[in-house]
Amino acid sequence: MPTFIADTAKLGPNVELGENVTIEDFCILGAPLRGITKPAPLKIGDGSMIRSHSVIYQGCEFPGGIQTGHHVVIRENTRAGKRFRIGSFSDVEGHCEIGDYVTCHGYVHIGSGSKIGNFVFLYSLVTLTNDPLPPSHRTLARPVVLEDGVVVCVQATVMPGAVMRKGSYAVAGAKIAGEIPAGRVVDAEGGHELHVKAIFDMPTMARLPWMRNHIEKYPEDDRPHLQQLLEEILASASTTAQSSV
Amino acid sequence: MPTFIADTAKLGPNVELGENVTIEDFCILGAPLRGITKPAPLKIGDGSMIRSHSVIYQGCEFPGGIQTGHHVVIRENTRAGKRFRIGSFSDVEGHCEIGDYVTCHGYVHIGSGSKIGNFVFLYSLVTLTNDPLPPSHRTLARPVVLEDGVVVCVQATVMPGAVMRKGSYAVAGAKIAGEIPAGRVVDAEGGHELHVKAIFDMPTMARLPWMRNHIEKYPEDDRPHLQQLLEEILASASTTAQSSV
Amino acid sequence: MPTFIADTAKLGPNVELGENVTIEDFCILGAPLRGITKPAPLKIGDGSMIRSHSVIYQGCEFPGGIQTGHHVVIRENTRAGKRFRIGSFSDVEGHCEIGDYVTCHGYVHIGSGSKIGNFVFLYSLVTLTNDPLPPSHRTLARPVVLEDGVVVCVQATVMPGAVMRKGSYAVAGAKIAGEIPAGRVVDAEGGHELHVKAIFDMPTMARLPWMRNHIEKYPEDDRPHLQQLLEEILASASTTAQSSV
Repeated sequence: MPTFIADTAKLGPNVELGENVTIEDFCILGAPLRGITKPAPLKIGDGSMIRSHSVIYQGCEFPGGIQTGHHVVIRENTRAGKRFRIGSFSDVEGHCEIGDYVTCHGYVHIGSGSKIGNFVFLYSLVTLTNDPLPPSHRTLARPVVLEDGVVVCVQATVMPGAVMRKGSYAVAGAKIAGEIPAGRVVDAEGGHELHVKAIFDMPTMARLPWMRNHIEKYPEDDRPHLQQLLEEILASASTTAQSSV
Repeated sequence: MPTFIADTAKLGPNVELGENVTIEDFCILGAPLRGITKPAPLKIGDGSMIRSHSVIYQGCEFPGGIQTGHHVVIRENTRAGKRFRIGSFSDVEGHCEIGDYVTCHGYVHIGSGSKIGNFVFLYSLVTLTNDPLPPSHRTLARPVVLEDGVVVCVQATVMPGAVMRKGSYAVAGAKIAGEIPAGRVVDAEGGHELHVKAIFDMPTMARLPWMRNHIEKYPEDDRPHLQQLLEEILASASTTAQSSV
Repeated sequence: MPTFIADTAKLGPNVELGENVTIEDFCILGAPLRGITKPAPLKIGDGSMIRSHSVIYQGCEFPGGIQTGHHVVIRENTRAGKRFRIGSFSDVEGHCEIGDYVTCHGYVHIGSGSKIGNFVFLYSLVTLTNDPLPPSHRTLARPVVLEDGVVVCVQATVMPGAVMRKGSYAVAGAKIAGEIPAGRVVDAEGGHELHVKAIFDMPTMARLPWMRNHIEKYPEDDRPHLQQLLEEILASASTTAQSSV
């Protein structure tokens, strides 16, 4: 489909659209639309789909394409790599760096300054915080870091300054604090003894980490990266074994 | 009041409105409004009220009337019975079957494929999940089942594949997994020993299950159904007593 | 900047705007815009900023200015004092009294009838409930009370009828019930033995209560009030010490 912009969508003069982009009704791109004399560009890459009622600020770049749900808000100076997907009612607070193939479900809140690697999944209601002593000065903010292959399940909260290393995994409702070693599972009590390798789904016998199962959903060019990530995560299990002795 | 459609609302050609329907500003009905050559009908029954900024997809049916809050999203192929109420910022992911007199408060997320019975209440931030091993293939999804008279309190999460039998009840923040027997209360630790009959409000001495108190709010024709449900839930208490011995 | 109203915003005849107010696109002010023959006034004070897609009902008063995020909903008969700030996707259910300098982050849900003092901070996903025995009659609602200087961190739930006394503080994910004495910290298990004075941030050695650090962000006229509040909260620590012996 050629690029389509709904007649009710509002675009600032600073918006640069790629090819085959869809902008649905009641969206605002390049916000704020007034009060700034020289707005920074907003770049929306080829094949992007911005669903209705979404607001994306100036100074953001999505060169590899972005797909939003409805009612999404993305604040200024956020950059994502290939195929960024972000669900309805999600809110990115700005000044965030996001890698390739990051998927956020709905109601995801990404605090200002967060750093997110490649192949990361964030589920509904996941919150990435950044204030170590609420309410503290913005200058004291300690945003979180999520490395490649991290998964954070529904309603989990990543506490200020937390660092989730490659392939670490947080269960539903977990509170993630401090540094989580590669491949570890953060449980509901905040512990992280278990390795993600040990988790499987009984009825189907499908196992984590998920790259075992999903590699064919990514373009061929990206599979070696994903394969290497899988190997690194699996290798981290032996470190786990030692450290838990 | 006769049917009213705000001048800013967008309706696809596939929308079928009943009588006395109100569609407020900035709504989109019959979405997506382009890219589909033969959209399925969207049926909005008599007396419905669609509040502003709501989006309802093609292929949904609300023959018994629907009342939404603001900023509600309902995806394709969802069907509800009589008087479906769903609060602001709620999100129904599509392919859901919903019974009569279901009430959802705000920020309720109903995962794709969920099955919800009659007289069910879901409170703010309740999430019905469906992915047993996130991120897994959509084909492996295990949606939840909530039977008649179920109540899920604020911020509770219903885990993939969970089945809540008639009149079971989840407290605030509970994680509901597996099969919950009729009339049982899921507590904050995930246990379900207590029967809902044992719960009451000290200052008013009001007791659960709620049908004891609210039956007059429903049309006379529906009260026998509600009365029978109450009896079934009360009867389930004796089973509980045995099993907990 | 002079007052600006986006061309797509919808304002009822009952809206009274102060000076230097900005109303962004796709907002609805004075809702509902039909069906009420004599709508109560909606007063928006000087310097207010209503961001896009927000809905504010009739009968609300913000004489001291209000700043909203995007997609905010504020229902009827809510009143706030000076500089009320409320983040994206927040929902105030109406009939609420809110003091001066109250700040709410995103996805904050304020149940109908809540009473909130001055200098209160509510973080993302905080929910103020009011139903003691869900689902109960609206007439039985027991809204919460948050006194001056209260802080409720991310994803905490304030249970029906809870009263948080001056300067009390709830950590992330806490469930707050009953009466919390002045200056106490509600922990993740719902206990409240600790005094807020004991909490500090290791790397920066910043300490609570926050008025120690932030007093210069408020106008000079309001600092004596804040200073007195600080002293009261600090003084409450000795009561704590006694009571925990």
